[in-house]
Amino acid sequence: MLAIDLGGTQIRAAHVAADLTVSCRHAVPTDSASGVEDVVERLCALASEALTAARVEGLEAPIGIGISAPGPLDPWAGVVVSPPNLAAWHNVPLARLVSARLGLPTFLERDTNVAVMAEWRFGAAQGARTVVYVTISTGIGGGIVIDARPLIGLDGTAGEVGHLTVDIDGPLCGDGQRGHAEAIGSGIAIRRDGMALLEQGASPTLAALVSDPQQLSARDVADAADSGDAACAAIYERAYIAVGAMCAGLVNLLNPEVIVLGGSIAEHRPRLHVVVGREIAERSFPRPAARVRLEHARFSDDVSLIGALPIVNERIADPAYRRASA
Amino acid sequence: MLAIDLGGTQIRAAHVAADLTVSCRHAVPTDSASGVEDVVERLCALASEALTAARVEGLEAPIGIGISAPGPLDPWAGVVVSPPNLAAWHNVPLARLVSARLGLPTFLERDTNVAVMAEWRFGAAQGARTVVYVTISTGIGGGIVIDARPLIGLDGTAGEVGHLTVDIDGPLCGDGQRGHAEAIGSGIAIRRDGMALLEQGASPTLAALVSDPQQLSARDVADAADSGDAACAAIYERAYIAVGAMCAGLVNLLNPEVIVLGGSIAEHRPRLHVVVGREIAERSFPRPAARVRLEHARFSDDVSLIGALPIVNERIADPAYRRASA
Repeated sequence: MLAIDLGGTQIRAAHVAADLTVSCRHAVPTDSASGVEDVVERLCALASEALTAARVEGLEAPIGIGISAPGPLDPWAGVVVSPPNLAAWHNVPLARLVSARLGLPTFLERDTNVAVMAEWRFGAAQGARTVVYVTISTGIGGGIVIDARPLIGLDGTAGEVGHLTVDIDGPLCGDGQRGHAEAIGSGIAIRRDGMALLEQGASPTLAALVSDPQQLSARDVADAADSGDAACAAIYERAYIAVGAMCAGLVNLLNPEVIVLGGSIAEHRPRLHVVVGREIAERSFPRPAARVRLEHARFSDDVSLIGALPIVNERIADPAYRRASA
Repeated sequence: MLAIDLGGTQIRAAHVAADLTVSCRHAVPTDSASGVEDVVERLCALASEALTAARVEGLEAPIGIGISAPGPLDPWAGVVVSPPNLAAWHNVPLARLVSARLGLPTFLERDTNVAVMAEWRFGAAQGARTVVYVTISTGIGGGIVIDARPLIGLDGTAGEVGHLTVDIDGPLCGDGQRGHAEAIGSGIAIRRDGMALLEQGASPTLAALVSDPQQLSARDVADAADSGDAACAAIYERAYIAVGAMCAGLVNLLNPEVIVLGGSIAEHRPRLHVVVGREIAERSFPRPAARVRLEHARFSDDVSLIGALPIVNERIADPAYRRASA
């Protein structure tokens, strides 16, 4: 199977075998400023290269192509609707364009739904009936499996766990909406709060780390916290609590078997896991809190490549998806 | 079909016909202080009376009994686990006890899940694929249908919409958990905030309405708000916003077709509906916000009787439920 990951900064293509071996990796910058047609052209060329490489290496011939892309998108029609980080993209029929060019059935799914498929079919939530996958990095995204069926929603937009309100009067998130978990718990929120500390002159450690405040990253705030800066540590602690309160709500709402925490912040900040566990214990009902397992994601950057495998395998015979991929 | 509604203050029994006609109504006080066996005995006697009345009136013979009860409960085993408003009840096998006494297959479900079945099969959400039912009265409860299947959860506790955190640092709810929607938006929360106004001497209107502060009800706060008391109006407005933020999160999370608002506060305070609509518009993504319909519940007090009809009809042939009801 050929997997394509259309990200905000780079496009990746790779062959994914049935045993989950990822090979024939190819990547190019997305360069979304260059226009939609240009990006699609680059994506198709990249996929073509990966296909050729797979043929040369004698790998199993792909039965289809699975594309992971940012939402919102229409998974049935294979259309990228209007992702915030691909500014010029509006209703681009990406699956059809790729399928026409490469001659293989092509399926499109939101990156976080691809990720939950990887973790559910092969990873930290393998075999579970109800799964919440949460990715905490620049933003907070998610994908959900309920009673052994991926939750898609009526328009394919379901699973946006990061856009539950956890603080009615809280800060705005990137979408201009108030008090969402993403507006407190994400890398963007952490960076925003770090900038505020710099502006207030409230963190000498952070000021010493960063010469140009505009270049500040969430990672810098983490470094300052790790070297003992209490204000920076408090920003992270608040972020963890926001993610924890969000997860606790999902435990009460969905009574799930597993919550998987992934993304760069989950990967590099082990305290997140601890605080989320505590918040679930404090904010959820005893029965579902006792039931849920909190797990680290098994897959890292390759999650959106590996998850494309079950997307293709499980949709290739499903008439609801076939119409876009012919 | 015979429907039983085990509530905190009264037990009701009635015959529900296929055309939804509710007849042979019988009711007794729950008097939960009198002990579990005594309450079960009274419930069985009441059901027996209703069955006799139905026979005398020549109504269709019930094929089973559906019991609506407060959660948490185990719907498969038919066991009432430990409802907060039935203090002495712990793991009571109510379905088996009733079935043994009355000789009919008996099914137990949480009151809010019974209500969503009524609204989904016959009411405001008829025919919808994904439904969120929210009841706002003393507490905030809910029931969810996803992709035409009731959401039960691994232990039967799913659907607790009122226990999503909407204000990380907010007040405690009845379960001692912080910042849940119920802790701001429910009748109990409104009463608590009204008491605080009285204690602070901050609402002369409310003080004039209520001679004994301990007797204060959410309804008194509503009456004061309606007669122009700004502080009381602000309590209600905050409650509506909490429910609205909660609903907006559910729109982002589930991408539902319908949200049904029921319960006494939804029924008597039309502004709730307005504020919830506004909060969804402001706090949800445009696509799912444009898709969701916000509806008033069709059924009032009879919702837990009418909803028992599809519970019995749809579970009587389901082996997952049969084991408890033989």
